[in-house]
Amino acid sequence: MISQEKNSGSAADVPITTDRAHPVTLREVAEAAGVSTATVSLVINKKKNARIADETRRRVQEAIRRLGYRPNAMAKNLVSGTSKFIGLVADGVATTPFAGQIIHGAQDEAWKHGYALLIANTEGNVDLEKDAIAMMLEYKVRGILYSTWFHRATEIPATLRESDFVLVNCFSPDSLTSRAVVPDEAQGGKSATEILLRGGHRRIAFINTTTPAPAKDGRLKGYMDALEAEGIAFDPELVLEAYPDQEGGYGATEDLLKLNVSAVYCYNDRMAMGLYDGLREHGLAIPDDIAVVGFDNQEVIAAHLRPPLSTVSLPHYELGAAGVRLLLGLDQADVEGPVKIACPAVERASVAVHSAA
Amino acid sequence: MISQEKNSGSAADVPITTDRAHPVTLREVAEAAGVSTATVSLVINKKKNARIADETRRRVQEAIRRLGYRPNAMAKNLVSGTSKFIGLVADGVATTPFAGQIIHGAQDEAWKHGYALLIANTEGNVDLEKDAIAMMLEYKVRGILYSTWFHRATEIPATLRESDFVLVNCFSPDSLTSRAVVPDEAQGGKSATEILLRGGHRRIAFINTTTPAPAKDGRLKGYMDALEAEGIAFDPELVLEAYPDQEGGYGATEDLLKLNVSAVYCYNDRMAMGLYDGLREHGLAIPDDIAVVGFDNQEVIAAHLRPPLSTVSLPHYELGAAGVRLLLGLDQADVEGPVKIACPAVERASVAVHSAA
Repeated sequence: MISQEKNSGSAADVPITTDRAHPVTLREVAEAAGVSTATVSLVINKKKNARIADETRRRVQEAIRRLGYRPNAMAKNLVSGTSKFIGLVADGVATTPFAGQIIHGAQDEAWKHGYALLIANTEGNVDLEKDAIAMMLEYKVRGILYSTWFHRATEIPATLRESDFVLVNCFSPDSLTSRAVVPDEAQGGKSATEILLRGGHRRIAFINTTTPAPAKDGRLKGYMDALEAEGIAFDPELVLEAYPDQEGGYGATEDLLKLNVSAVYCYNDRMAMGLYDGLREHGLAIPDDIAVVGFDNQEVIAAHLRPPLSTVSLPHYELGAAGVRLLLGLDQADVEGPVKIACPAVERASVAVHSAA
Repeated sequence: MISQEKNSGSAADVPITTDRAHPVTLREVAEAAGVSTATVSLVINKKKNARIADETRRRVQEAIRRLGYRPNAMAKNLVSGTSKFIGLVADGVATTPFAGQIIHGAQDEAWKHGYALLIANTEGNVDLEKDAIAMMLEYKVRGILYSTWFHRATEIPATLRESDFVLVNCFSPDSLTSRAVVPDEAQGGKSATEILLRGGHRRIAFINTTTPAPAKDGRLKGYMDALEAEGIAFDPELVLEAYPDQEGGYGATEDLLKLNVSAVYCYNDRMAMGLYDGLREHGLAIPDDIAVVGFDNQEVIAAHLRPPLSTVSLPHYELGAAGVRLLLGLDQADVEGPVKIACPAVERASVAVHSAA
């Protein structure tokens, strides 16, 4: 906003309106301050060793403020020899609520350190991705976050190696030459199962996904770890598989009911939503007849089912923020493999609170 | 990717690896091509009138290709005097699936015309928004798309006027000095109601939102227009109001059932999802006992309810794309007010197909 408070008629004043047809120029600032454009440039670029009298510097800063001059960030970047951009390549921005949370976390952390995000949404299109990375390289980004909306192994596009980069929500088998940050699926699966164990349940089914993914293996491992810690033998008969959406969860109802369990942990919230419908059609009440836990804490779904769904949260915001910290060297990468971010439990009414018998 | 195909040992060849520690410089290109850096710069910036022999130009282009040189886009922007950025200020990227679709549409259209998007997510925070616009102005963006995740009237931040701008999914009462693109809520409400009219229904309830919004007025107008076109008198008794989420839709069940209607149109899909639960608890089947239509075609919900929900689609992708076209002057703004984008009907199984009696 252009402040007019101090327009008290000095010779340096120039007429200003908010509707001016062109941006304020460096030359106008120089004229207003009664100095050369070179002097204005030195003040803007905060050149060390530039010998400028304090009074002159103040006059230039006052003119910049009064005229509403915007220094050219691209020129500043060229002068300083570095860019203040971090690139973020994201798939699935338009089709999932997850990518938006990675963007949010990455942006907050980037801004904290004076960087702006250059975001490209690829929706998984390889050509778009190639163009996006090329564009970021041409803007001389400080580095690139390469993110996927679901946790998976990924090839590293060759051009990504022309810059510093961090894999976010994905990882490469080649962990020696790439840094990555992913959710801790096994801890999340353990936390989900523990919600049911705390509810007094001992015979707990797990409806896993049919789709191979790190989440499939990790969430199963967490289930097994939680049972083992309670001295409950793992029974592979209690693990079902279904497609990871509402229709998959609904379709698993019949098989689940044959298992005679008091509780079920679903691979994700969408499956739990479909299972809710299936259980209701059988006249079963949640949580009294059967307790249900999901995974993802998916916006617009988990908190709004009847009853609201206990689940664990996918830490997409934290993944984005941690990716920026790894890129800037503020956090250290793990030589053993990707940095893992915890998936916290979110307890709601789909599991009854139980006092131990 | 750096191609090594033609590394056949000419004197101009330099050793290259994909793991090089620093980006290829203009000087290296000049040395490889056996020309001055000034000549390379002229070729890169496609200066008209620059007298460069075709053979020299080819040699430079070949060296650029072979070394994998990335021209500095910021330097190119400075040379050309224009930036190839379009700014996009968005709220709600992390919390709604809608902002992502605006981003997707804006990016596709921007890239088509050689522009990259500089996206800032504000989550409605006024300070962040101010910083975001200032950052975009310093990067000398071609213009700014100012977008909101739900359709509403907005104040125009004063700094936005320092650039060309288009309001996306929002509008200003001051339509003479601002261009805007919004969804056609009235047409959408008419289309939603028409799905039910085509299903043979005559007594149709509308559960509107309690929250004042252009969508509240527009979707009601559409309902009234559709009834009028069929010669059905508008009965205000058939319009209920509830909070626009699942809990609101569920809570409206009792009042709805008193109205003795065969069909209901809900303000949004989230309300329809809650109403599904309420109707089921009363033993009512959709669509046989009561037909249901929503609004939004919300990802992860509408297509996955039981039965899948008939609805109309909010055109967020098209809003983003149309915003870019308005900004670039490819589409004309409407002097009467915001440009309106159609909300297309999406028919699924929550309304039975009916042959006219």
